[in-house]
Amino acid sequence: MIWTITPNPAIDVTYRIPELRHGETHRVNEVQVNPGGKGINVARVLTQLGEEAGVSGLVGGATGTQLRELLAERAPTLIQDWVPAHVPTRTSIAVVDDRDATVFNEAGAPPRPEVWQELRGWMRRRIQPGDVVTICGSLPGDTPGDTYADLARTARELGAHTIVDTSGPALLAAAPYADLIKPNEAELLVATGAPTLAEALAQLHIPGAVALSRGADGMELHLDGQTWRGCAPEVIAGNPTGAGDAAVAAWAQFLAHGSSDWAEGLRSAIATSAAAVARPTAGEIDPDLRGDLLARIQIS
Amino acid sequence: MIWTITPNPAIDVTYRIPELRHGETHRVNEVQVNPGGKGINVARVLTQLGEEAGVSGLVGGATGTQLRELLAERAPTLIQDWVPAHVPTRTSIAVVDDRDATVFNEAGAPPRPEVWQELRGWMRRRIQPGDVVTICGSLPGDTPGDTYADLARTARELGAHTIVDTSGPALLAAAPYADLIKPNEAELLVATGAPTLAEALAQLHIPGAVALSRGADGMELHLDGQTWRGCAPEVIAGNPTGAGDAAVAAWAQFLAHGSSDWAEGLRSAIATSAAAVARPTAGEIDPDLRGDLLARIQIS
Repeated sequence: MIWTITPNPAIDVTYRIPELRHGETHRVNEVQVNPGGKGINVARVLTQLGEEAGVSGLVGGATGTQLRELLAERAPTLIQDWVPAHVPTRTSIAVVDDRDATVFNEAGAPPRPEVWQELRGWMRRRIQPGDVVTICGSLPGDTPGDTYADLARTARELGAHTIVDTSGPALLAAAPYADLIKPNEAELLVATGAPTLAEALAQLHIPGAVALSRGADGMELHLDGQTWRGCAPEVIAGNPTGAGDAAVAAWAQFLAHGSSDWAEGLRSAIATSAAAVARPTAGEIDPDLRGDLLARIQIS
Repeated sequence: MIWTITPNPAIDVTYRIPELRHGETHRVNEVQVNPGGKGINVARVLTQLGEEAGVSGLVGGATGTQLRELLAERAPTLIQDWVPAHVPTRTSIAVVDDRDATVFNEAGAPPRPEVWQELRGWMRRRIQPGDVVTICGSLPGDTPGDTYADLARTARELGAHTIVDTSGPALLAAAPYADLIKPNEAELLVATGAPTLAEALAQLHIPGAVALSRGADGMELHLDGQTWRGCAPEVIAGNPTGAGDAAVAAWAQFLAHGSSDWAEGLRSAIATSAAAVARPTAGEIDPDLRGDLLARIQIS
């Protein structure tokens, strides 16, 4: 079983307008609403890869109810088992005009400290040895940066394979308990404060693998001093939002199957990520494109 | 009893950020959420004027539940008696930075035509002769412009005094059934297509009064060929959002008391409107300022 944990999910709202004008009032006739959050995208991709996946994390308020309802409608096979946040789930607004997208991400109201204990309690009840747990996305409001480290340590103690997909101090604190992390180079340098990639990798103290994403330049996997590299054979046009989440899904599948062929895992992560770029909505992949790329990606 | 009917209320969300930058992603740490809609503001001002007021209209979905809960919390003495919209209540986002406010008003999903019959059914059950009914704000989505005319005619048939506060074709269609409308000059010219104010007033076919707002230049009342004028003795600094709704509240109070001293009504509308400008939140007035202005406003 693969669980994704999203402590700070969001209602993702997209407004399409002809032109955003600073200081003016816009009537918005085209509104899209989607259940948002990295862990939700990861889990939706996992079901498309044929895996049984469940989502957990914190939801609350009327927007939390809306998120659960939207997700049940859009991804009916996903198992949902949320922990009450006792604060409203946040909203994220993307205003898309003919030029580009302007995004407003609410930070999210910080839940009371007890809620993190309740989330760890949920983990102890539901997670079995051999499960995969991916801990995804930002932390709400002013939550202490070691919160992800606590969650990752708990998952590890329960015998689960653990993926942490976040940034900044939370990434650095959780890395020592992770089987895999998936930053890009800039995120890794910011999180560690190191001047070079080699020093940044050394500062992570990660017992597992670092899957470093390089956008259109592909991905690198660093593990025990070894490095694998790969890239999609051509540039895939589309929406890069959710491409990283698709890569996390591929790695979660890899860990769930207990495989040790890391080159094969990297090939799947690159193909799944590119297959997500080809789809306009985060959390979806093009399975035919993924199959085609899997056969053609070279790993060195 | 004074009822305000808001067919298209909104959750009003305000994001405060240092600077809105086109095409960028903003983390929003300061979020305010208020129950929004002209009729809601009118009713909240009415309770501050000591009147018993009730709100109705259409609400639906998770956002509709949120709106009712927020309103119960912020204005506990208001009577709420909504009709189910069967579509979600819309959201309105104001992004306020150090320069100005950029607003995104969702048009609102259009309810099924039967919902308007249900709203008229609600009116027949709840409205008593002598009540005041104010029909406020925009119509959702692609709702036909004569919908407000149907609602105003129903209120009139039930023996209620009727105020219509809207714009465009809906205002023009409803005016023949209104005891009072409150456009500004530009709205009136746009709605009628007339080149001058005198011609616009003639085209309205309104049996009642036209309270014309002129912003800081005060208000005019046109009734049966007579005109009254008045203005606050000084410019009140503050937030003009909700000033018009406060004027509507004053006129609803005037009609509810069956007064025929229209100069006194105009004085109250100007004072209440200015007392709303002095408060940062729409739906609130400064009662001391209102009392002070009432004693000093000259009507000619």
